[in-house]
Amino acid sequence: MHTKMSQVQISEVGPRDGLQSVKAIMPTAHKLAWVDALVAAGVSEVEVGSFVPARLLPQMADVADVVAHARRHAGLRVLALVPNLRGAQAAAQAGAHKVSVPVSASEAHSLANVRKTRAQMLEEVRSLAAWRAEHAPHMGLEVGMSTAFGCTLQGAVPEDEVIALAEQLVAAGVDEVGLSDTSGMANPAQVRRLFTRLRQALGERAGAAHLHNTRGLGLANCLAAYEAGVRTFDASQGGLGGCPYAPGASGNVVTEDLVFMFEAMGVSTGIDLPRLLAAREALRAGLPEEPLYGMVADAGLPKGFTDTKGATHG
Amino acid sequence: MHTKMSQVQISEVGPRDGLQSVKAIMPTAHKLAWVDALVAAGVSEVEVGSFVPARLLPQMADVADVVAHARRHAGLRVLALVPNLRGAQAAAQAGAHKVSVPVSASEAHSLANVRKTRAQMLEEVRSLAAWRAEHAPHMGLEVGMSTAFGCTLQGAVPEDEVIALAEQLVAAGVDEVGLSDTSGMANPAQVRRLFTRLRQALGERAGAAHLHNTRGLGLANCLAAYEAGVRTFDASQGGLGGCPYAPGASGNVVTEDLVFMFEAMGVSTGIDLPRLLAAREALRAGLPEEPLYGMVADAGLPKGFTDTKGATHG
Repeated sequence: MHTKMSQVQISEVGPRDGLQSVKAIMPTAHKLAWVDALVAAGVSEVEVGSFVPARLLPQMADVADVVAHARRHAGLRVLALVPNLRGAQAAAQAGAHKVSVPVSASEAHSLANVRKTRAQMLEEVRSLAAWRAEHAPHMGLEVGMSTAFGCTLQGAVPEDEVIALAEQLVAAGVDEVGLSDTSGMANPAQVRRLFTRLRQALGERAGAAHLHNTRGLGLANCLAAYEAGVRTFDASQGGLGGCPYAPGASGNVVTEDLVFMFEAMGVSTGIDLPRLLAAREALRAGLPEEPLYGMVADAGLPKGFTDTKGATHG
Repeated sequence: MHTKMSQVQISEVGPRDGLQSVKAIMPTAHKLAWVDALVAAGVSEVEVGSFVPARLLPQMADVADVVAHARRHAGLRVLALVPNLRGAQAAAQAGAHKVSVPVSASEAHSLANVRKTRAQMLEEVRSLAAWRAEHAPHMGLEVGMSTAFGCTLQGAVPEDEVIALAEQLVAAGVDEVGLSDTSGMANPAQVRRLFTRLRQALGERAGAAHLHNTRGLGLANCLAAYEAGVRTFDASQGGLGGCPYAPGASGNVVTEDLVFMFEAMGVSTGIDLPRLLAAREALRAGLPEEPLYGMVADAGLPKGFTDTKGATHG
């Protein structure tokens, strides 16, 4: 028995981060079935897609339909990624509860990725926040700061710059700023240091940890973030998406493994692991050619495994 | 700059734990070349083999020759696994600096694995320690307590039993008792709790963490052990050995990934990562059919990566 149960929020980003990273396009009906399977497992927050031009990301052409479907699940928070004001307007119209805007901590990555400087992105966010305040005040607005732990183009990213940009983003009107290890360069000491500073600087507006498993440190980094007080974690079913460099080197932290770690530690995720593992079949049905990662899926739950609800599996 | 550099000892167990877990037999010359490559990378402790009857483990038939060769490396601590007094006598004769005796925390595992109860193994260790005190006083003697975090046969293993057995082993005369997650059932909260208790109970005689990556938590568990004060970690190059359940589900923690984690955190391992990665080729040459794991090997070092000696790679 846990006398004082800790809780975390797992934000499933596979339908966005995963599906936009693979070449194959998952048919809409399969996307909806996958979201349904995730919700059936107890997942309470899903980033269901990106509001970007379909000519750039045909995988996301049906995002408005996916948002509309996901909205029918009472209690599910429906997120969408938007790169700019136009995307936010479309997301609001479709009914997303919250939008997430990626902003690079690295100037080099910002220029390479969106052909804008960080200062220009800050202005875009300011416009977006002003529009949101007037036209969609109930829609949440977060920034996921990419390359916050290092950049494949420029290498190290000064921590002072990360914190300063986070403060500017809050001043520009966003609700929360999270930190993303876009290219899998973070280590646990750095994660603890940077999230501790972020929480000192932003208080309640310090947002989610979006950590990758590119070099195998994904769960260790999540543990360090948890110890620094982070309570919202992005993860992707089957490790889909992120920046996989090589076969076997997954990008995103695998949701199933992250949920296993927290539940085994006695930290409640609200998610039923056998049902979450079953939801992989919905993903596989929609993307039959794509390799799915996951150590818990491979090894199975350990004998006598008991989750935080007291249910014993394995 | 790190004003107060922490240090850890990485104990490479691949030549023992790895090679005895695979069917193929690595030729002696390749074993020696692999040990040489590990030493060239800065590895200062290697478990080079098991002193067991060759009819049971033909992979280990040449263990005395490997010990003799490894002993020629000044500064290298040469370990061997021994299951009983007879093995310890052979290890001492061959010149091992230290022997490690596996003792199961789980009664069910002990009976299944060595057909002895824990009480009988304790008596074996007591005889071994008495012989060591008289005939090989300079040879170290440690116990690696297997199934300390759970057992595939009996499920949970009571923590009180683990600590009580550790205390009995120290009373029987061993220098150190470490804890092994034989079947990959540990979680970070449990690792922290159990190693904290072990250190409270045994003080300086609390030994190494031997953690597996079966369910992806290997590095997170090592981080938790480090935070609980553990400074010696077993790991296996290429993740060879342990209890792999399925393709992609490695057993032992991968040495390369563990060294990367610590060096990235500013914790000194004394190991040069590019040379350690190069040593995989010596392993591969001796076991060409065996899959090698390792996320850092797959993804490469991150751009601008700087180790604790201040050398920049990647």
